[in-house]
Amino acid sequence: MNFNKRFNDYKEIFEEALKNRIETLNSSNETLKDAMVYSLTVGGKRIRPVIMLAVAEVLCVDLNKVLPFAVAIECIHTYSLIHDDLPSMDNDDLRRGKPTNHKVYGEAMAILAGDALLNYAYELLLRSVTDNNSLSAARMLALYAGAFGMVGGQALDILSENTAKNEEILYKIHENKTGKLLLASTLVPSCLAGNECFDKLSEYGKNLGLLFQVTDDILDVVSSALKLGKSINKDADENKLTFVTLYGLEGAKKYADKYYEKAKNAIENIEDNEFLVGLLDFVKDREF
Amino acid sequence: MNFNKRFNDYKEIFEEALKNRIETLNSSNETLKDAMVYSLTVGGKRIRPVIMLAVAEVLCVDLNKVLPFAVAIECIHTYSLIHDDLPSMDNDDLRRGKPTNHKVYGEAMAILAGDALLNYAYELLLRSVTDNNSLSAARMLALYAGAFGMVGGQALDILSENTAKNEEILYKIHENKTGKLLLASTLVPSCLAGNECFDKLSEYGKNLGLLFQVTDDILDVVSSALKLGKSINKDADENKLTFVTLYGLEGAKKYADKYYEKAKNAIENIEDNEFLVGLLDFVKDREF
Repeated sequence: MNFNKRFNDYKEIFEEALKNRIETLNSSNETLKDAMVYSLTVGGKRIRPVIMLAVAEVLCVDLNKVLPFAVAIECIHTYSLIHDDLPSMDNDDLRRGKPTNHKVYGEAMAILAGDALLNYAYELLLRSVTDNNSLSAARMLALYAGAFGMVGGQALDILSENTAKNEEILYKIHENKTGKLLLASTLVPSCLAGNECFDKLSEYGKNLGLLFQVTDDILDVVSSALKLGKSINKDADENKLTFVTLYGLEGAKKYADKYYEKAKNAIENIEDNEFLVGLLDFVKDREF
Repeated sequence: MNFNKRFNDYKEIFEEALKNRIETLNSSNETLKDAMVYSLTVGGKRIRPVIMLAVAEVLCVDLNKVLPFAVAIECIHTYSLIHDDLPSMDNDDLRRGKPTNHKVYGEAMAILAGDALLNYAYELLLRSVTDNNSLSAARMLALYAGAFGMVGGQALDILSENTAKNEEILYKIHENKTGKLLLASTLVPSCLAGNECFDKLSEYGKNLGLLFQVTDDILDVVSSALKLGKSINKDADENKLTFVTLYGLEGAKKYADKYYEKAKNAIENIEDNEFLVGLLDFVKDREF
């Protein structure tokens, strides 16, 4: 299996679906739509859509069935980045090597573009609900995107700045902020397939999410701004709670190895799992 | 018919349903939930839920079926107020006579509380989708809440500040920003009843929305801050496009009369329409 080719194939399938959805996106005004499309198309690894498509293929789910969910989760991920980058949140000027949304469109429009993208995700999901399986997939994604998932994790992250470091809090932040959407990426196709391999994919997705986040924390220290496409060493500057500030660089790397192994073991009995294992290497060894 | 009693009865039914939903709201942390609940329970006329319940009763739709939609639309309305009040948007310190969300919880948490409320609305809606009628009701609400509806109108409003006044733009702002959620309040019960009276309620809801907004513009000039519970005469200060800045106070009042009549005529052949007519008086004659 050529991992990179397959990754890019999934990415291309996704980009095509995203382009089609953008063309039919109705907005009462063009500037708002421009601001939404700017952040949706500014680049990005598309890791969540690629995971969804890959798991769907392993479970023999029609890719056309999972694609609206892939577009929706990327809309949710993108809105969260727009809001995270705002001056009152992380105050970032760069994202994926380009000016952040509020740097281009102003703060007010960036807030609204984020709101509209989140809303659009649900417009797409509701249009894609056609049976009980797609309904349960949409419900799960909604639960993991909100106060019980991603937004809850982001709120914890903000509250933890400048407070005493604590392993339990760190775990809870990562489990929710980054973890729940990555977990949803593995579980949406499972729901669409009538909960096939649900427990195994749940364990895989959970550890993949933690692996993703610990690698992010490591990259913040060791990568260059050029590769990462955003400001580096911000976490230490801001006294943020991360795997590196808590366990040091070597300690963080050991956690990465642990999550990698747990994720890999979880799917060892799933057929055609090579690409899913490759995704773990991709997440662990990435330089950006 | 005692209008006030019936209004308060609907409001109480709604408040009870809201309280129950809040109790089961899962959040990864308490501060985020507190911020969400603060704005949800700080007061407010609950006009959208009351409209939904009233129309549902006229169409003989089980109130328990429409209540999750009523809670969802109030979550959507509430998130939009939290984000509208932010310093980079309308920069308001008071809402419903109380400190705005970011004044209590800070800007970052207010943005997240808004995001989480919007997301929660869809968690509720997806849980309430049980058949084709509820699915089409949820789809319509989603469409009217986003870039094609409320968020689109808000974006237009921001873009129109300090630009030349224009009747077409004013109409488009109001039709979307305030109008689409009020329209959705009348159409959700119609969808739940298999599109019963859809066209009549569509015309009623559209004109009710315009009546609501022109009255809002008038109140900004003539009401006191105490009654309105928010800063007054802000529109003129900020050179905003409103019915009053465009047509003057008397001109705006004529528009109010026009929308009132159109809304009333639209439902003249609907049985048991007294309360729906009463709602028009309530919106037109309100002092806050």
